[in-house]
Amino acid sequence: MEPWRTAISTSDEKSIFIRGFDVTSLMLQATFADTIYLLHQGRLPTPDERRLVDAILIGVSDHGPAAPSAAAARIVASGNRQSLEAAIAAGVLAIGDAHGGAGYECMQMIGAGLETARRENLSLEEAASRIAASAKAEKKRLPGMGHRVHTEDPRTRILFNLARDSGLAGNGIAFMKALEEAARRLIRPLPVNVDGALAAVLYDLGFHPAAAKLIFIIGRVAGLTAQVMEEYAREKPMRVRIPVAYDGPPPHPNK
Amino acid sequence: MEPWRTAISTSDEKSIFIRGFDVTSLMLQATFADTIYLLHQGRLPTPDERRLVDAILIGVSDHGPAAPSAAAARIVASGNRQSLEAAIAAGVLAIGDAHGGAGYECMQMIGAGLETARRENLSLEEAASRIAASAKAEKKRLPGMGHRVHTEDPRTRILFNLARDSGLAGNGIAFMKALEEAARRLIRPLPVNVDGALAAVLYDLGFHPAAAKLIFIIGRVAGLTAQVMEEYAREKPMRVRIPVAYDGPPPHPNK
Amino acid sequence: MEPWRTAISTSDEKSIFIRGFDVTSLMLQATFADTIYLLHQGRLPTPDERRLVDAILIGVSDHGPAAPSAAAARIVASGNRQSLEAAIAAGVLAIGDAHGGAGYECMQMIGAGLETARRENLSLEEAASRIAASAKAEKKRLPGMGHRVHTEDPRTRILFNLARDSGLAGNGIAFMKALEEAARRLIRPLPVNVDGALAAVLYDLGFHPAAAKLIFIIGRVAGLTAQVMEEYAREKPMRVRIPVAYDGPPPHPNK
Amino acid sequence: MEPWRTAISTSDEKSIFIRGFDVTSLMLQATFADTIYLLHQGRLPTPDERRLVDAILIGVSDHGPAAPSAAAARIVASGNRQSLEAAIAAGVLAIGDAHGGAGYECMQMIGAGLETARRENLSLEEAASRIAASAKAEKKRLPGMGHRVHTEDPRTRILFNLARDSGLAGNGIAFMKALEEAARRLIRPLPVNVDGALAAVLYDLGFHPAAAKLIFIIGRVAGLTAQVMEEYAREKPMRVRIPVAYDGPPPHPNK
Repeated sequence: MEPWRTAISTSDEKSIFIRGFDVTSLMLQATFADTIYLLHQGRLPTPDERRLVDAILIGVSDHGPAAPSAAAARIVASGNRQSLEAAIAAGVLAIGDAHGGAGYECMQMIGAGLETARRENLSLEEAASRIAASAKAEKKRLPGMGHRVHTEDPRTRILFNLARDSGLAGNGIAFMKALEEAARRLIRPLPVNVDGALAAVLYDLGFHPAAAKLIFIIGRVAGLTAQVMEEYAREKPMRVRIPVAYDGPPPHPNK
Repeated sequence: MEPWRTAISTSDEKSIFIRGFDVTSLMLQATFADTIYLLHQGRLPTPDERRLVDAILIGVSDHGPAAPSAAAARIVASGNRQSLEAAIAAGVLAIGDAHGGAGYECMQMIGAGLETARRENLSLEEAASRIAASAKAEKKRLPGMGHRVHTEDPRTRILFNLARDSGLAGNGIAFMKALEEAARRLIRPLPVNVDGALAAVLYDLGFHPAAAKLIFIIGRVAGLTAQVMEEYAREKPMRVRIPVAYDGPPPHPNK
Repeated sequence: MEPWRTAISTSDEKSIFIRGFDVTSLMLQATFADTIYLLHQGRLPTPDERRLVDAILIGVSDHGPAAPSAAAARIVASGNRQSLEAAIAAGVLAIGDAHGGAGYECMQMIGAGLETARRENLSLEEAASRIAASAKAEKKRLPGMGHRVHTEDPRTRILFNLARDSGLAGNGIAFMKALEEAARRLIRPLPVNVDGALAAVLYDLGFHPAAAKLIFIIGRVAGLTAQVMEEYAREKPMRVRIPVAYDGPPPHPNK
Repeated sequence: MEPWRTAISTSDEKSIFIRGFDVTSLMLQATFADTIYLLHQGRLPTPDERRLVDAILIGVSDHGPAAPSAAAARIVASGNRQSLEAAIAAGVLAIGDAHGGAGYECMQMIGAGLETARRENLSLEEAASRIAASAKAEKKRLPGMGHRVHTEDPRTRILFNLARDSGLAGNGIAFMKALEEAARRLIRPLPVNVDGALAAVLYDLGFHPAAAKLIFIIGRVAGLTAQVMEEYAREKPMRVRIPVAYDGPPPHPNK
């Protein structure tokens, strides 16, 4: 079998190196957010970059037991009391297009919008208007915009301010702000939600679009561990009683 | 349906609070390791406690593509190119008793050993010797000790030194050192591995035994995201060719 | 890398063989239940054995959307609309000790009970009484007995009757009936539930205890596919609204 | 909370009904393949329909330990010896676009091709040629065609013959045959593989495109249970040694 290639880490009997850095040095001097940045970017972040990564991870870490990821983790923990990893994995599996995963699509949209602007010599505002108009015409959702609970997501403001104050805000954030303005004008007020803010900031930090989902997963797994721990500690197995309304074919006693 | 109880986080239209702390304040001032500690302990850590949590998370974050968690994630990514979350979840599922999960059992062993010592008025050394002798007699592995690659796990030394230097080392670490000594005497040299070190430190920090597995999962998920990203970026779908030797019943052409 | 050994199946460019049987022959002449039996037992079942395997698989195939496995699958589908396999996998992960997995433990208990009876020359009734008494003393649940909904599980009667009528009922079923009687006398009426019936029948068919969980999983995956399909077809993403009661530390506006 | 609607099954204290059929009657008279058909179609199959469903499930049930689904399940079992469901779930997660999931896309392609033919009044051959030409121009793979091992998938022939002999072959199979012919002419010989055959047959049986993946999952889970059982029985934990070639940044001793 061909060896599996990797440029991420290597180890021998005595040492482990991540992207060339000795793990023991990282353990002494770096933070977990540094290491996440290092794993994905191949270098350690500056303090301002680290702050943004920490802020993103904290911002998405938990949103209560009713978020699909936490609810799935808890229901698995309710039926399966012997496998913490099964519950956490089920929570991760709920992170998809409709929950936590919109950042991926949003970051691809940002990239495509900026590419269009450059190629056709448009302003960001024009490129954003085009995308908003097209979403309206096709009755499609704009990824990273709107939220079922928050009218204005408090985490978006923090992320955008942190990026601005540190000089790290770039075209990603500018594009999302332009899109928010275009949506307000052409569709309806659709504030940038945390998925959109995360996508914009990670774009400006030079991450790959897939990182928008992956970084969300890292952050949310922290919350899932607390949710599962609480389920084990406070609740009995099989405690969930979901009300069900059957509207299928009537039972046939003779079938 | 009864509401689901939680003491972890709450949110309204404008704010999200984790253990009573406004998420936006945390995003501005705390680190991700702080938030993980907060989620599990209900308060923010001291700088020394934060350093230990960061060191643990970094220490277990990645161990190359051949670790079962990374290998499972990559093989899933190899067959399934449309679901990053499926690959990460598969990686999490490999974290069990034999890989990454030994810390859970180790922390329970530490708790039981210290309880025995207190109840029967034994020294830590005596309690540890008893456990080592019993493992030898029953031919059972001591959880958190020995490693298939490292003769001395470099991460153990760092964690124990950090704990000692900050005055946070307690009975958990003392017990594991006593057990290492007892194993050397009664069985064979079995250095405390990173699972054992993590368990000892988390015990001294007051975490629940289940946290030994859960904190490992949080740390390793960071590495898994990089492994999956690399699999998508560098490798073709279905690229893995595992050699197989069939030794079952011979094919029956007429069956 | 060492080749992976297997005695299950082999294939070349032209053919696939399962336990020595040409897959194309099986496709023409066998049933899926035959193939499941073949995969686990290495030979095709008799018609009576096949009927029991079919009956077990059908009996556990679905129990509505509120069972933890179905609920987890649906919640994952609610947040993740792009990965059918993620939803099915989450449903599988909920199959644990408290839901669907009791058959495993039950089959181990049957084996241990019968071993004790043989070794100590006890009747099945005596061995069963001992286990019931010990469960009562230790306040432990008897695996495979009792149900949160059904006072008498209709599937148990069918499985036991099918086994009796075909002459396949053996010590496994006899033991579970003796245990039911002992529980009624020593604890309270605890009818054998479908997990217990499945364990008893699979024991008498010569399956490994782990098969009690694995066969349950195969059967339930059928129902999960219908549950997930219905979730996609009838429900919007993110439709689940779980009521939450927060009872944690009060929000600190200045934190 | 709103009750969860379902038309699949209902139960009370005494009975369980699947699509209106009493589970105990099904257990006595139906097969597992019948029940799978019933769950998805709302009625029991005819004998010919049942044969096709059985043939599909058997055909995809196992393909050795090196298939990504089996390899992922085994690697998880290698690291995690306490959770059979974790291993099976990991196997399910590997069933994606590149492995086992092509049937979904293929069935959508069949539907789109037949729709084009009807709308533009084309023959099946013309519609298929158009799709083959477009795949060639865009350098895209045709889903359900070609195989990395089999030059001619033996399972395809069986499925198509069974469908033809029972009069159940319809436009789905006709379209895939036309596409095979078009690919031979315009691209290169690309025989219909088992995913494509399964998609064509399920199309002709009136299943939803998503069923192509879901039915594959049901079938393959049977094989995964045997693979995981064999891993537990024959192999030690952590036995997999994957060779790794590191080609990342050189270790920095002083970092």
